[in-house]
Amino acid sequence: MVESQSATALAPWRPALARALHRNRSLVYARYLQLATVRPDGRPANRTVVFRGFLKDADCLQMVTDARSNKVAQVAAQPWAEACWYFPNSREQFRLNGHLSCIGAEAAEADLRLRRQAWQALSATARTQFTWPTPAQPRQSERAFPDTPPDAAEPLTEFCLLLLEPVSVDHLELRGEPQNRTCYQLSGLESWSIQILNP
Amino acid sequence: MVESQSATALAPWRPALARALHRNRSLVYARYLQLATVRPDGRPANRTVVFRGFLKDADCLQMVTDARSNKVAQVAAQPWAEACWYFPNSREQFRLNGHLSCIGAEAAEADLRLRRQAWQALSATARTQFTWPTPAQPRQSERAFPDTPPDAAEPLTEFCLLLLEPVSVDHLELRGEPQNRTCYQLSGLESWSIQILNP
Repeated sequence: MVESQSATALAPWRPALARALHRNRSLVYARYLQLATVRPDGRPANRTVVFRGFLKDADCLQMVTDARSNKVAQVAAQPWAEACWYFPNSREQFRLNGHLSCIGAEAAEADLRLRRQAWQALSATARTQFTWPTPAQPRQSERAFPDTPPDAAEPLTEFCLLLLEPVSVDHLELRGEPQNRTCYQLSGLESWSIQILNP
Repeated sequence: MVESQSATALAPWRPALARALHRNRSLVYARYLQLATVRPDGRPANRTVVFRGFLKDADCLQMVTDARSNKVAQVAAQPWAEACWYFPNSREQFRLNGHLSCIGAEAAEADLRLRRQAWQALSATARTQFTWPTPAQPRQSERAFPDTPPDAAEPLTEFCLLLLEPVSVDHLELRGEPQNRTCYQLSGLESWSIQILNP
């Protein structure tokens, strides 16, 4: 069963994801997802990141990271990523495979505007962490970790906006016997195909 | 700050993981983790799997999968994996990087014994799914999905035991300002080094 639909507005998997976010809105951690990338040595890396909403009028997921973190170097070498997003209340999973891009302090002006908006949307606590010493280095003393938030208007150079642009989305609903599984594939630049699969 | 410890009994990250499992025991999905592998084309794959306990007297995590699933082919080509395990109640994350092995119907006798034990530990519902049509193929009709569980004693050929043997474990505790991060690395065959890192 294959259908096809042109991507005039939002991608056809967006309503299912919006529904999952709504059904799980009582859980703060329903906005956490696991993002897999590939390390320069060919081994996978996988970590929890916070979903920061979609880019306006686009099917891009926004996340943020520290420019000094390993994933920024990993993305430069291998931009493919797969996000795995499990929703506990509704018992469903989305696997979003696509291109990852990092928008850092050196980006073009249009991108810097998006980066600035993402920075301004952060809490003071989240912003403060970008003033801390380099992540994953030997632990420094308590004094090296200030608790004063930096300027809310302009991002620190350490701040990166991460964008995930999916080209395939695999949606599995565990409720139901058998479970429901739907796969959305971007074919060409403008159209998504939809296929119903065995779970 | 580097310590070292020989792996006489269990690995030094096991108590922290056991504590997390205990603190989150009220949540059935605290036993779900996200397992990243690398596809033959070099792109990452990432999906939710259920933790089925540790192998007796070893630091191997047990999971199960269908021999017909993509991850079995992925592991044959690239055995490295990274599991990302987030515990919502205690707000902590474990990233377990290591070797993945699949124990299928063709395994050696000692491994087949482990596989049989894992099969016998499954619920009837979980066993039934191995009688279903090939996963991720175009959806077959309702009739193709029986609801009668197969023999509980001997595993079906479709059943694989997946073992993850970590060589590095990154433990991040979000509680605390700054957060705590500890990295355990297997150095050589027998000893783990422990390093306290910036979050």
